[in-house]
Amino acid sequence: MTLAEVATQAGVSLSTVSKVLNGRSDVSPPTRAKVEGLLETHGYRRRAQGAPQAPLVELVFHELESVWAMELIRGVENVAKEHGAAVVLTESGTRHAPGADWVEGVLRRRPLGVVLVFSTLPDKVKKQLRSRAIPFVIIDPAGDPEPDVPSVGSANWAGGMAATRHLIECGHERIAIITGPEDMMCSLARLDGFRSAMATSGLEVDPRLVRYGDFHVQGGFAHAMELLDGPDRPTAIFAGSDLQALGVLEAARLKGLSVPRDLSVVGYDDVPPAQWSSPALTTVRQPLRQMAEEAVRMLLRPDGRGRSSLRMELATHLVVRQSTAPPAKHRKA
Amino acid sequence: MTLAEVATQAGVSLSTVSKVLNGRSDVSPPTRAKVEGLLETHGYRRRAQGAPQAPLVELVFHELESVWAMELIRGVENVAKEHGAAVVLTESGTRHAPGADWVEGVLRRRPLGVVLVFSTLPDKVKKQLRSRAIPFVIIDPAGDPEPDVPSVGSANWAGGMAATRHLIECGHERIAIITGPEDMMCSLARLDGFRSAMATSGLEVDPRLVRYGDFHVQGGFAHAMELLDGPDRPTAIFAGSDLQALGVLEAARLKGLSVPRDLSVVGYDDVPPAQWSSPALTTVRQPLRQMAEEAVRMLLRPDGRGRSSLRMELATHLVVRQSTAPPAKHRKA
Repeated sequence: MTLAEVATQAGVSLSTVSKVLNGRSDVSPPTRAKVEGLLETHGYRRRAQGAPQAPLVELVFHELESVWAMELIRGVENVAKEHGAAVVLTESGTRHAPGADWVEGVLRRRPLGVVLVFSTLPDKVKKQLRSRAIPFVIIDPAGDPEPDVPSVGSANWAGGMAATRHLIECGHERIAIITGPEDMMCSLARLDGFRSAMATSGLEVDPRLVRYGDFHVQGGFAHAMELLDGPDRPTAIFAGSDLQALGVLEAARLKGLSVPRDLSVVGYDDVPPAQWSSPALTTVRQPLRQMAEEAVRMLLRPDGRGRSSLRMELATHLVVRQSTAPPAKHRKA
Repeated sequence: MTLAEVATQAGVSLSTVSKVLNGRSDVSPPTRAKVEGLLETHGYRRRAQGAPQAPLVELVFHELESVWAMELIRGVENVAKEHGAAVVLTESGTRHAPGADWVEGVLRRRPLGVVLVFSTLPDKVKKQLRSRAIPFVIIDPAGDPEPDVPSVGSANWAGGMAATRHLIECGHERIAIITGPEDMMCSLARLDGFRSAMATSGLEVDPRLVRYGDFHVQGGFAHAMELLDGPDRPTAIFAGSDLQALGVLEAARLKGLSVPRDLSVVGYDDVPPAQWSSPALTTVRQPLRQMAEEAVRMLLRPDGRGRSSLRMELATHLVVRQSTAPPAKHRKA
């Protein structure tokens, strides 16, 4: 049965039928219902071509595994909705840049813009997007933005400073840090914040207590097992990420140390697991959702395309929960 | 500058320019590069209309907060990619059904199909989708599928049985359960699995040890604080969900009980936090990613539309980690 026949049976024009098919709103509900009824009865199947445009925002993750992903997705969703746009989610996989298949898809989908999390774009792709006036922004918690791409991050140095100050104010002096990988700017910024907080309080940093982790549970666990070995162990560990902090908690448990009585632990990020851990983690909050919201706003504002050198840094702040306390006077060796 | 002028300058036809704009592959790389260069130089901005169709799969969540979300998203991504489709993610928010704005968007986007997580569709919407040959499937871990919609779930009764059997095999006899909300089928199925495991081992179920939680950390915590109060406390708790199990761990910590020495805990779901907790949780794994993959396959197979009564249940299995052990002979009261 052709659409023309559907139109005849419904007593409407062919264009009305196609309006219904395309989800246009300028058709009266009764007419719409009648046409939909006929289409359903006769089992209409649409052709592959001819879908009308609907606004999209592309969101690309390096890896969805990240515990951050959910907060970032919700931030992007929030602002995209405000603009009546739907969010297309892509995981670029092991590569830090999305593949060619992705690019082809984006060019066909013609999104309002592209938000990249922790990813980069080959110059060729940047050129393709720019030539079609498809703006893009990078959410870059690692603090290592590309010069020619607008990006949103957060204040890592200040976060490291705040975490360390809190431990010092609790009365800790022998404080260890497990920061992230040595090749990530955010790891270095957090470590420098730690060093400055120690220095301004006249405390020495024992080089053996400075570790570079992997931002995952295992890295925190492995370094903590070493740090907590022996009588001169630190009374507090700034774990550099919440996942590393969870690894530290497990190491403390295996060493028979009670947190926070025998050991204080501070995380970083304030992702949901930080609240669910036992004890709940004192941590530095990265405003992930707001970072994502700002990224989309940056993307969708009229002059967004011109502002390729824009870098926005949102504030971090300390969230005190149950994993930190003053050091015990007498600790078991 | 018009596209025609771009075509003239590039020495190509207008249709070639539009092919480039539409991301079509039947244009030679040099020509493509030349046209893109001109478009970029002259700051071309596309019209709102006229984007060609690109295959989409719609994924709708009731709430993205869920710790399940990530695994389900990855499953949908995996199979959508196989079909060259991109995934559009929508959060329906507090409502258990997506709003009218969403429906309009879907009709304009013309997806290959719609995957709903834990959501339902009003009959009107089902009609709209069916009339356009847009199939839909529900991922329903709650085990309460609608009769006229294909759905994917997992084996809740068997999961409850497996968790309880494991505790009994460890030597526990006084076992408590904190299942989910009383109005969710999966809660009842897991509880019945628990009862059957107890009965087949000739163990009595103390009604005071049967609790209905909320599937969140707080529910597990509150019930565990009561269950662990007093000398006749259970030696093991089947927590009904991983988040509830995390709440039980926190309650044990506050009661000065060591897990698993003084108390064994089994979770349910095997979401990532189950591995990160201290100790890591013994839990029942729901194959969330595979559930999502099956849902999309169900959606995209040619006869998908006809199979509206299809219900697929995937197997669950026990994952033994560090939160369970034989009961201590002598426990502190």
